[in-house]
Amino acid sequence: MITELISVGTEILLGNIVNTNSAYLSEKCAQLGLSVYYQTVVGDNEERMKETIRTALGRSDIVILTGGLGPTEDDLTKEVTAQVMGMPLVEDPHSKELLEAYMQQYKDNHSQRRITANNYKQALVPQGALVLDNHNGTAPGLIMEKNGKIAILLPGPPIEMKPMFEEEVFPYLRKKQPEIIYSQMVKICGIGESQVAEEIQDLIEKQENPTIAPYAKTGEVHLRITAKGENEKECRKMIKPVVRELKERFGKNIFATDEKKTLEEAVVDMLKDQGLTLSLAESCTGGAIASRIVSVPGASEVFTHGFVTYSNRAKRKCLGVKKSTLKVFGAVSEKCAKEMAKGGCFAAKTDICLSVTGLAGPDGGTEETPVGTVFMGCCYNDKVITHEFHFTGNRAKIREQAAAHALAMLRECMMEGIVKKS
Amino acid sequence: MITELISVGTEILLGNIVNTNSAYLSEKCAQLGLSVYYQTVVGDNEERMKETIRTALGRSDIVILTGGLGPTEDDLTKEVTAQVMGMPLVEDPHSKELLEAYMQQYKDNHSQRRITANNYKQALVPQGALVLDNHNGTAPGLIMEKNGKIAILLPGPPIEMKPMFEEEVFPYLRKKQPEIIYSQMVKICGIGESQVAEEIQDLIEKQENPTIAPYAKTGEVHLRITAKGENEKECRKMIKPVVRELKERFGKNIFATDEKKTLEEAVVDMLKDQGLTLSLAESCTGGAIASRIVSVPGASEVFTHGFVTYSNRAKRKCLGVKKSTLKVFGAVSEKCAKEMAKGGCFAAKTDICLSVTGLAGPDGGTEETPVGTVFMGCCYNDKVITHEFHFTGNRAKIREQAAAHALAMLRECMMEGIVKKS
Repeated sequence: MITELISVGTEILLGNIVNTNSAYLSEKCAQLGLSVYYQTVVGDNEERMKETIRTALGRSDIVILTGGLGPTEDDLTKEVTAQVMGMPLVEDPHSKELLEAYMQQYKDNHSQRRITANNYKQALVPQGALVLDNHNGTAPGLIMEKNGKIAILLPGPPIEMKPMFEEEVFPYLRKKQPEIIYSQMVKICGIGESQVAEEIQDLIEKQENPTIAPYAKTGEVHLRITAKGENEKECRKMIKPVVRELKERFGKNIFATDEKKTLEEAVVDMLKDQGLTLSLAESCTGGAIASRIVSVPGASEVFTHGFVTYSNRAKRKCLGVKKSTLKVFGAVSEKCAKEMAKGGCFAAKTDICLSVTGLAGPDGGTEETPVGTVFMGCCYNDKVITHEFHFTGNRAKIREQAAAHALAMLRECMMEGIVKKS
Repeated sequence: MITELISVGTEILLGNIVNTNSAYLSEKCAQLGLSVYYQTVVGDNEERMKETIRTALGRSDIVILTGGLGPTEDDLTKEVTAQVMGMPLVEDPHSKELLEAYMQQYKDNHSQRRITANNYKQALVPQGALVLDNHNGTAPGLIMEKNGKIAILLPGPPIEMKPMFEEEVFPYLRKKQPEIIYSQMVKICGIGESQVAEEIQDLIEKQENPTIAPYAKTGEVHLRITAKGENEKECRKMIKPVVRELKERFGKNIFATDEKKTLEEAVVDMLKDQGLTLSLAESCTGGAIASRIVSVPGASEVFTHGFVTYSNRAKRKCLGVKKSTLKVFGAVSEKCAKEMAKGGCFAAKTDICLSVTGLAGPDGGTEETPVGTVFMGCCYNDKVITHEFHFTGNRAKIREQAAAHALAMLRECMMEGIVKKS
């Protein structure tokens, strides 16, 4: 089925935000076997929005709109789509109830926040539409079907849009598809994008069904293998030898073959499996690794302490880094990373401590230690393994890469049995 | 002038890459005072591309296309645009010369690369078009003018597109533009989106020039005021009274009037201004607040220690939280938040310590302490102020809100002089 994406929001047209929703939805549509022919961005303007939605519904079977569902005057997506599809707006008792509960709860905590008349417009829905509850905000999503055309309206913030898509829209769309599309993800860390691309070039060149599509993430490469077939079993059978081949080529660099599994989940799972506890000693990443670990529900079973030792004094007091190390080698040095990891294990009494110290910039670089230099240490059983990295990009990009590679390093240490519960 | 952006590339429609070109070009167009009404993405398909370009040239004065200028069969942007505009392709001696020089250089370094017949198609240009040299690749850019319409064709890779835009297209477009656009941002924290919307509804209703547009972020609302005028000075003059009015209405909830300033930057700036040092004691946010603070270059001047005390033991050992507090009140309690903040100040020897302890879920909620309950403490001078929050949403959303509100709380404490260097 032909699918089209429309993002609504003047902030995208002004370049205030990057349109990541379209990339996310395109990937999901590809996974569902839906052909996306167009992505459009239109502002919060009634006439242009109407024209865009009319054109999209004319040439596509499914139109997925994101944004413009909020409570403000500017938010017109629901109103305009309902008008184009000829579906009048009516009050939805269930949505109203949920909205009131949400607002009441919010009011209890933020005495200054009032329930405004504007909010109530969010309880209006096009007659006959399927309402999708929003567990992360007030604007419900909507699925509208009429004359063989489908319009799906989702909130703009990715944190609200993604769970709604995954929980409600994905299964709905899967049922609409006559052919079965089945895909499996193979997630790789510790190898660069171009090396992965080179190593699978022969597979990609001869591919037909199933297909392999690479997606690069910071510090990770995801390969999606997609098969089309009569049923899931047939698809799985087609995918199996490809996954086997990839496992042969990338071996232990594969950290997940599960769509949803993140690198931090893989790390937490390994820690649990091996009965190990973890602490972190972070400098330039400043808590970013701890935050990724804590994003995993149940991380508390294995993760106990994070030390964000941003000052030299903190490195000395919390982790016992020697004054002479900081003086002679500096905070961004292999020796400092080593002492941080050792000191973290000792202070937190954990089996493992991973340390990161580096220079994220933009200032402070020298010829010897340029911006992007990052040292990591992994301590286990009083032994420390260290790695040196040189990342490129701005401060945010360097910190993001450092956090991703730290998780990959932690995993590698556990894989290789360097760190192993005796 | 009405401007429209078209990105050509099946890889964007498959979600393999995020369309950052459109965000970049939109921001540049806004800066030039060009009104971008649409962004479209279309694949490497002749018919759909023709239709998209025809529609765009019909409704806009300027159409900027990126991608599809390469040497392969798939690359059709130039051919299709030339056809739609009715401009025949002719060989451009200058482009051919540059192409040959580039390919020769490439050949010298990459023995396996051959100059193919395909490559020569890059030396063909629409008759009368302005050719833009590509100093970072082989595909030249093009500016085509006909019947009062302008089509600008740029290569897809950002590393080739951006310098070409800045060096050649930006000055070209500036000359075309009679009017100037100027905008200013007002960023608010501590008030919900709908309350902000209601409080400025009268301003939005009567707006013409300048306009006000609200953007909601987690824990923040951004208002963009945009004016059109003859020159920047005139625009600034129009914007000034609107900003003054907003300052009167939102007062200390405004944390920035600068486009790029983040909440964490505002907090770091206040700490610097008041000569205060900060430590953080995080449980459920797990380093997310520290990570936001560290994202600010130069944060090391004021931020020294972050304690990610995820286990009860860590709360006791690092922060001196009493065993009896954890036993009687639990880790998610006002008393624990208080002791964490106090203990953080003491352990880190900082002027302020902000603590966060809460339940991000998905499990562990009770009737008394449901998922989403978060306590925060701000200790200064041995005194602790605490706040209780009840956030909704999934684990990620709860943690994101907690981090944003912690920064807002820290700022509030400093604003109100509760925390003040004596």
